[in-house]
Amino acid sequence: MASKISPLAPEAYPAMPAIEGVRTGAVEAGIKYKNRKDLAVILFDKPAEVAGVFTRSLCPSAPVDWCRKHLSGGKANAVVINSGNANAFTGKKGSEAVKLTAEAAADAFGCKKSTVFLASTGVIGEPLNTSGFAEKLSEAGSAAAAGGWDDLARAIMTTDTYPKMSTRSFEIEGKTYLINGVAKGSGMIAPDMATMLSYVVTDLPVASEDLQKLLSKHVETTFNAITVDSDTSTSDTLMLFSARNGRKPVSGSALKTFGKVLHEVLHELAILIVRDGEGATKQVEVTVTGAKSAKSARRIAFSIANSPLVKTAIAGEDANWGRIVAAVGKAGEPADRDRMEIQFGDIRVAHKGERDPDYDEAAASAVVKKEFIPIRVDVGVGRGSATVWTCDLTHEYISINADYRS
Amino acid sequence: MASKISPLAPEAYPAMPAIEGVRTGAVEAGIKYKNRKDLAVILFDKPAEVAGVFTRSLCPSAPVDWCRKHLSGGKANAVVINSGNANAFTGKKGSEAVKLTAEAAADAFGCKKSTVFLASTGVIGEPLNTSGFAEKLSEAGSAAAAGGWDDLARAIMTTDTYPKMSTRSFEIEGKTYLINGVAKGSGMIAPDMATMLSYVVTDLPVASEDLQKLLSKHVETTFNAITVDSDTSTSDTLMLFSARNGRKPVSGSALKTFGKVLHEVLHELAILIVRDGEGATKQVEVTVTGAKSAKSARRIAFSIANSPLVKTAIAGEDANWGRIVAAVGKAGEPADRDRMEIQFGDIRVAHKGERDPDYDEAAASAVVKKEFIPIRVDVGVGRGSATVWTCDLTHEYISINADYRS
Repeated sequence: MASKISPLAPEAYPAMPAIEGVRTGAVEAGIKYKNRKDLAVILFDKPAEVAGVFTRSLCPSAPVDWCRKHLSGGKANAVVINSGNANAFTGKKGSEAVKLTAEAAADAFGCKKSTVFLASTGVIGEPLNTSGFAEKLSEAGSAAAAGGWDDLARAIMTTDTYPKMSTRSFEIEGKTYLINGVAKGSGMIAPDMATMLSYVVTDLPVASEDLQKLLSKHVETTFNAITVDSDTSTSDTLMLFSARNGRKPVSGSALKTFGKVLHEVLHELAILIVRDGEGATKQVEVTVTGAKSAKSARRIAFSIANSPLVKTAIAGEDANWGRIVAAVGKAGEPADRDRMEIQFGDIRVAHKGERDPDYDEAAASAVVKKEFIPIRVDVGVGRGSATVWTCDLTHEYISINADYRS
Repeated sequence: MASKISPLAPEAYPAMPAIEGVRTGAVEAGIKYKNRKDLAVILFDKPAEVAGVFTRSLCPSAPVDWCRKHLSGGKANAVVINSGNANAFTGKKGSEAVKLTAEAAADAFGCKKSTVFLASTGVIGEPLNTSGFAEKLSEAGSAAAAGGWDDLARAIMTTDTYPKMSTRSFEIEGKTYLINGVAKGSGMIAPDMATMLSYVVTDLPVASEDLQKLLSKHVETTFNAITVDSDTSTSDTLMLFSARNGRKPVSGSALKTFGKVLHEVLHELAILIVRDGEGATKQVEVTVTGAKSAKSARRIAFSIANSPLVKTAIAGEDANWGRIVAAVGKAGEPADRDRMEIQFGDIRVAHKGERDPDYDEAAASAVVKKEFIPIRVDVGVGRGSATVWTCDLTHEYISINADYRS
């Protein structure tokens, strides 16, 4: 874990309310870190409905393989997450460790192993030692409580400098429901994936197929619209649960209401990850308009958001829009150089393919000195638009990653 | 310009021989830098045959537009290159500046403006002030000399810490010929382009169509196989000239011999750019084998070479092969996770999809402590292979780019 807390950390963490039939908690298993909890559980008193989105890496971790395989059952009794070791690229040992962990959890929590979902995050390539997991899982089961969300959020951290939590309450037909989410992630954050680890739970009764539809839809504009360093992890996992406690799943407009709140929670967690991006000192919002399609706009936006030269300019508080032009150019997507327009906040710096005649460097600089920097680029060929979020690239990113493992 | 010279700089620069009918030189035009030459020319006494490869950026600079337009003529009398201002994203002012420069050069050197080739490198988006260019170009014409290659190589530098030159002599049918090349480039270096700026001249008489064929072929495994920071420039230009001085162009086996030497020169210049990569302390060679095709191997190799997490690990002298696994996974190309093999130098660290049973961290660490680090990855699905080159990602890269413009 990094020692310094991100300057973009929230000033306060939300008080996470209890959700009926759901207990969370964590214990110290000594996997890699000393004197901190590193083995977390989410337990459902009755089988929960479940949906998931996972990394698109072609080298997924063993736990991702396991979750994909068992997701079709649509039911979850327990989730087990460890930090400190990713159990990725660990061959047969990796799938054996996963099986042993699921079996130990099934024993400890009195359920089938196929309803246990797993995740591991940390160093890639080192075999995960699961001896002692049976005992530690029993301990975690005893520690798990309705109010254990903070413990859960902290136990899954790796290079994160703060825990990431979000909660909302919402009303459907006069009844109040809750949705709680936690996430971890700081580096190896890139598109084309679900996210790092994130778990979201609601007490609204929703069938697993509907959960999956909503999750797949809203991940695109939240976790799949952020990037810290363009590196996609082997372990990205985002899961959504409905602790329906035997009640009949809702449908129709209730799902629509739920979808909106779900989007809010996913967005809040995704932005918390960007703001805890390794070494981040600035949050950058890149909006591309006037593209050929939304997909094309998204590619251009990511080309800007992943450009080391754009990100270092932001770190240096330099409104260097020339580097934005270069990033648009390398995206390989249709763009009309001679109609392009670029804004930092409300300050238009480029217009019709050249420096704005009213360009005022001081005004543009004032925007990039702030903590939140909106960049807008119109590429002048169509009506497609997209927004993505990233952070700046600083010395601290190098410090964190040049000696993370050793 | 950076003040520190790259630790990977060559110990000595080659003595560049004179090529008959070719003069090069540079003068101080005060475009951005003080007390250094920033306006360079290459002059051909008789029309030279010419070929070129340019950036694939969709926002090319005005000089790139100009060169593309006039390349079809196949003849060159003069090349004019300025550093300090890229004349990119400068709208109509940009194309006017290009036209004025070409006209001034045509006047100064007594040739048609369509046989004048241009390049500008430096800050993007600032109008290039060409007033005074007519006078400065006359000066440059007077300064140009058969031995002016060193001046040329230095005048085109921007964030480069050393000039890049390469020369070879070769024999064809008992006669000795020469090939001289210069290049600049240090940041904004990425694939899908020609290179930054590079000019290569031979006295072997070769027709422009043959020059173009050979250049397009050999750029793929040289300049297009390097990356510093994955950012493609708006101004990348690589040009090849034959100062044939009226002689009949060669054909057949002579072209084959020339192609080999050309490859050597392009490769040497490309590696010089990687070794002068902004902030570089290590040169990394990434070879991918066992891929579905050469193209697929190349994509995987670039995914590794562009990964900030791989590059920071190398900077930290950490043989963190888990990050290589992640970079292979995110490439989106066929790879068999469970047959993958990874080597640092001669040390096999991963085998059959997991840590090598004989893995010796000390031996792997010894490899990454060196200045030149070969990484080999076999992805276990086919026979395609490719090699690309990059450098590490260090604090110095951030320092250079967080305050380049201001």
